[in-house]
Amino acid sequence: MKRVLIFFMLFLFVKIAFAQVVYSPDKHLRLSFVLKEGGKPVYELNYKGKKVIEESKMGFILNDFLSFSENFSVIRTENTSSDTIWKPVWGENSEIRDNYNEMLLFLVHRTTNWKVNIRFRLFNDGLGFRYEFPTQKELRHFIIKEELTEFNLTGNHKTFWIPADYDTNEFPITTSHLSEIDALIENVRKEPLAAKAPSPNVAVQTPLMLKTNDNLYVNIHEAALMNYSAMFLNVDGKSFSLSAHLAPDKNGNKVYFQTGNITPWRTIIVSDDARDILASNLILNLNEPCDFEDTSWIKPMKYLGVWWEYFIGGGSSWAYTDFKDIIIGKTDYSKLLSNGHHGANTSHVKKYIDFASKNGFDAVLVEGWNEGWEDNVAYHKEKIYSFTKPYPDFDVKELQNYAQSKGVKIIMHHETTSSVIDYERQLHKAFKFMVDNGYNSVKTGYVGPIIPRSEYHDGQWMVNHYNYVVKMASEYKIMVNSHEAVRPTGLCRTFPNWIAQESARGTEFESFNGNHPDHTTILPFTRLKGGPMDYTPGIFQGDLSVYGSNKAKLSTTLTKQLALYVTMYSPLQMAADLIENYERFPDAFQFIKDVAVDWDKTYILEAEPGDYVTIARKAKNKNEWFVGGITDENSREAHIDFSFLPPGKTYEVIIYADAKDAHWQTNPQSYVISKKKVNNVKTMKIWLAPSGGFAMSIKEK
Amino acid sequence: MKRVLIFFMLFLFVKIAFAQVVYSPDKHLRLSFVLKEGGKPVYELNYKGKKVIEESKMGFILNDFLSFSENFSVIRTENTSSDTIWKPVWGENSEIRDNYNEMLLFLVHRTTNWKVNIRFRLFNDGLGFRYEFPTQKELRHFIIKEELTEFNLTGNHKTFWIPADYDTNEFPITTSHLSEIDALIENVRKEPLAAKAPSPNVAVQTPLMLKTNDNLYVNIHEAALMNYSAMFLNVDGKSFSLSAHLAPDKNGNKVYFQTGNITPWRTIIVSDDARDILASNLILNLNEPCDFEDTSWIKPMKYLGVWWEYFIGGGSSWAYTDFKDIIIGKTDYSKLLSNGHHGANTSHVKKYIDFASKNGFDAVLVEGWNEGWEDNVAYHKEKIYSFTKPYPDFDVKELQNYAQSKGVKIIMHHETTSSVIDYERQLHKAFKFMVDNGYNSVKTGYVGPIIPRSEYHDGQWMVNHYNYVVKMASEYKIMVNSHEAVRPTGLCRTFPNWIAQESARGTEFESFNGNHPDHTTILPFTRLKGGPMDYTPGIFQGDLSVYGSNKAKLSTTLTKQLALYVTMYSPLQMAADLIENYERFPDAFQFIKDVAVDWDKTYILEAEPGDYVTIARKAKNKNEWFVGGITDENSREAHIDFSFLPPGKTYEVIIYADAKDAHWQTNPQSYVISKKKVNNVKTMKIWLAPSGGFAMSIKEK
Repeated sequence: MKRVLIFFMLFLFVKIAFAQVVYSPDKHLRLSFVLKEGGKPVYELNYKGKKVIEESKMGFILNDFLSFSENFSVIRTENTSSDTIWKPVWGENSEIRDNYNEMLLFLVHRTTNWKVNIRFRLFNDGLGFRYEFPTQKELRHFIIKEELTEFNLTGNHKTFWIPADYDTNEFPITTSHLSEIDALIENVRKEPLAAKAPSPNVAVQTPLMLKTNDNLYVNIHEAALMNYSAMFLNVDGKSFSLSAHLAPDKNGNKVYFQTGNITPWRTIIVSDDARDILASNLILNLNEPCDFEDTSWIKPMKYLGVWWEYFIGGGSSWAYTDFKDIIIGKTDYSKLLSNGHHGANTSHVKKYIDFASKNGFDAVLVEGWNEGWEDNVAYHKEKIYSFTKPYPDFDVKELQNYAQSKGVKIIMHHETTSSVIDYERQLHKAFKFMVDNGYNSVKTGYVGPIIPRSEYHDGQWMVNHYNYVVKMASEYKIMVNSHEAVRPTGLCRTFPNWIAQESARGTEFESFNGNHPDHTTILPFTRLKGGPMDYTPGIFQGDLSVYGSNKAKLSTTLTKQLALYVTMYSPLQMAADLIENYERFPDAFQFIKDVAVDWDKTYILEAEPGDYVTIARKAKNKNEWFVGGITDENSREAHIDFSFLPPGKTYEVIIYADAKDAHWQTNPQSYVISKKKVNNVKTMKIWLAPSGGFAMSIKEK
Repeated sequence: MKRVLIFFMLFLFVKIAFAQVVYSPDKHLRLSFVLKEGGKPVYELNYKGKKVIEESKMGFILNDFLSFSENFSVIRTENTSSDTIWKPVWGENSEIRDNYNEMLLFLVHRTTNWKVNIRFRLFNDGLGFRYEFPTQKELRHFIIKEELTEFNLTGNHKTFWIPADYDTNEFPITTSHLSEIDALIENVRKEPLAAKAPSPNVAVQTPLMLKTNDNLYVNIHEAALMNYSAMFLNVDGKSFSLSAHLAPDKNGNKVYFQTGNITPWRTIIVSDDARDILASNLILNLNEPCDFEDTSWIKPMKYLGVWWEYFIGGGSSWAYTDFKDIIIGKTDYSKLLSNGHHGANTSHVKKYIDFASKNGFDAVLVEGWNEGWEDNVAYHKEKIYSFTKPYPDFDVKELQNYAQSKGVKIIMHHETTSSVIDYERQLHKAFKFMVDNGYNSVKTGYVGPIIPRSEYHDGQWMVNHYNYVVKMASEYKIMVNSHEAVRPTGLCRTFPNWIAQESARGTEFESFNGNHPDHTTILPFTRLKGGPMDYTPGIFQGDLSVYGSNKAKLSTTLTKQLALYVTMYSPLQMAADLIENYERFPDAFQFIKDVAVDWDKTYILEAEPGDYVTIARKAKNKNEWFVGGITDENSREAHIDFSFLPPGKTYEVIIYADAKDAHWQTNPQSYVISKKKVNNVKTMKIWLAPSGGFAMSIKEK
């Protein structure tokens, strides 16, 4: 009887056919949602009268085969607006405006009576939407077999893409039309990487950057990825349709879901000006505010490290010994002979601490300090490392005291080789060890295939792991810089101790000749939309043959390396090269010493994905500005409009520019440093060499 | 050049054809090892001139397809003997003799030059052998795809078996000939259990008990299962061949192995007297000694519990509320209404503490004390329980104080619903919570399929997990009683805080009409060979219909329940029934109050698997003896020979026997208690009802 009544009520109140439209606050964007015949939810997105996303399906396949993308009715809708300002703990801007119009749709699936809500938020810079499964009587636990959300594009756009792979995001970026991906993808997938699990079909990773033939810029990603698997995008190169492709576990399930939870936001940033894509805070805005009681312990920082020496072919090693039959907990390292070229030894680290202290750096990263590296590519082994036992030649207490006396922090390193369960087993003790020994930040690493063996790097389980580590770290007041983790989705707003991530092809690939000159002109449009990247720039000695057998050459000029400190936003910035190279170029090194790592305000001056990026930023709480500009393999002239400076004053600008004979391949270390006076009505032209760049530091005169 | 030299040396010293024989100290057992044509290792076992194991293959398939069971040479052998006595922390005997002849064979695989050793230990009561992979230059990490060890039997033996299943060992035991297993197994596998992963072929679990047509008793199991997966046995019902079948992970790999490690021992206990099988300490002897510095905190104990009430259909529930949309860490239980029949509430637990204190029990188990039980069968959910947050009506501090004032311990309960990773995440805090609140023992539970989702209950990964929990618990001086874990292999010698396990069909199945009258006459020959079982006997009210809708009836008489405290060895013994039932039968309850849980000496008086067991034991450090005897569905007369008592003294024996009209089905509560005088030259006959039993307590007069 009760059930009959409920059905009766549904027929009274439910709108079977349904359509509703929402506009962005500035009216440039229009989102329309329609429940089509058969109760099929679709959406469409327009920008300044042009279609951006054609009619696109929404929904899921649940459990084994339930089609949860039709037979819906809309029970009711709620429309709201919001316009607030919030202050991040650190960031590109010290204040961020969060201004949107929202539509929340309450849907019921007529065959099962299961309920789902869809929440759309329309900002001036784009759209976010997510699915919300409220707690309900008829449904509690289910499996998401597929998410069916589509992003149907309007044409054969220019696309900046890497192939979908559940275990890695370290591919080089390819620029092609959508229709060409199919023919190109297999070759790109041959890239040798430590763990690969390619999607079985043609699919790409997000953030995905697209440019239409009529010069619209579109960026598709997700925000607030928690307790869900990462989204890739299936590509239909004929219909230009993209659709969600969630990372599975090895049982083929995408997400284990309990009602009372939500999906991540699906995000579409849109503009006819590429600079707006870089300036957009949409993804941060869609993440939850930080609820830490105290954030005073979270501090942006610049660091050096015992790191690059492991890549350049100079012989330095993570491992302490050549003996490889290591059993953690049993092997007595004090009885093993050192191989004589172990990088993380006390006296070598002290040199880095000295140099860091002398040059105003906050910290020194030390990799290879702990037991286990001899057997570090044993991907089947669960207990590879101890995270509390240093090698015999790494004196934790002595280094703690020494670093403290010099006002420098040591950055902890936890390479897990993806033996994740063993890492979790050690986590509490590892963090306690850090606190006891004066460490307040950790670089984590996830090289190789995951243990538990049912999981991939980008699946729900690992997503939960990364978030768990960051949360746990916050309890110990530890900052985290995670490498080889799932790419970020703005969670650094919620967890500001997640100070940076790698999650893309970083500078280490320069040591394998692996980065193209346009690489860093694309990353700000793709990977960086999710959050800061520990790209580790600052390589001055780009020709690695000087060290030995490695013939790799850097893909940039020296000044482009400087510019990256401004163009590649991160509150954690490394000066990655060897001390001796900074000592050889003290004038250029001055910029790295000077440049800020936290900002009041950011100005995107010029930008075109794949071609160039020019950004100016005001240092946080200081009247200092820094500008960086980079170009791809083509030389260019940057145009700097100094109107970002406060009016009525004169400023001194130090300019680090490519010399006229500079060229990334033939003459990368040729640069000119000059000083000029500017004010806020001035403009300036600066020449950039092929794969060159420039940097500026500006102070009030 | 070096390699050539090594090959040359091999040809000099290696015996290509090879055969060697070892005898047990009493010469009754003969083990012969032969390297057959093609370098194939085989072994054979004889007992008093009769074959027990026919020529049987040894070896592996490694990595994808390498046959590691041929092309071997024997480099050398080492023969040793040992005869020692050791003292367990607790046990059936306070001293155990460990006496064996050993042969260690050093083998090299000629095609790969990989090395493996095989160690045979021949005891008077049987054989143990294992594979040892020494550290070596050519081999470090590999995968065991199959272990090929055979146990080729001599005929169509009577077999006491449960089907191979990677996720459960809670099947009823079937008695049949080997040749009949094939036809019977599918039906047995229909048994409804919370998680099942049947082997794809006909295979059975160990400990496997066999009886030959000429009355030899043979028991096959394993000892010291660490960092390896559990062994099942493939059954060829035509050739009577058994062969190792290791539990895989869901990727199909059996074991991830690093050289420098060993396999568990494969054990074959043999005798022409069934009592010797029960008396055998071979499996304990093959486990490593305990290396705990202090074991004084490990104490055998008798306990009551808030437990049986959840099974009898009386309405009591683990869950606090009827609200099921629980999200651990978010759901605020203080705002939820109690369902009114939550078992683990403070005042109810106090009643148990009072009763335990009054009757000399050591402890009270409380299940259902912690947040999460409402959603406890959500097998896909990772965060089901908190192990540190009690329900609002369970006052941890008040109960700690109350229990302490009464001299009683509370036993912690950690049901994981097999969300093992989440349990590990909470483990440190959960153990700390225990220590902080006065708990020194925990019952763990693994109902349902395992998370990580690549794993089964009996695979290497979970084996490591159980061992990890026990080791971690020892650091907190916590005793562990694990339920639904892999069956034990004598590791309680090494980790004596592993006080008991379930790992078989226990008393809880009596509440589903699930146990056959012969069940407990078989378990001592099978499951109990690996270690003590928390069988939870002591049910006096066997007809459950008195409570409500449950129509189940106990499969024993009341006195058989008493006998189980002696026949089912465990240093942890529960009196599982409700308080009110013990109050109804105070005279019978007296035996449970009196019976010891730790022993100086055990005497197996009568035994036949599937039919009857009679055991006498001397209480540890006391001149008290207890005798228990049980029978299957057939009544019988037990013959007690009191020669186990010290000579020259008179003893008073209290006898708890089935009354003449007792019958497990029709009159289970009919018993007679009598007192007699005995001495060590006396014998006695006692009648046991169908599925009946008797118990005796003996003191010096």
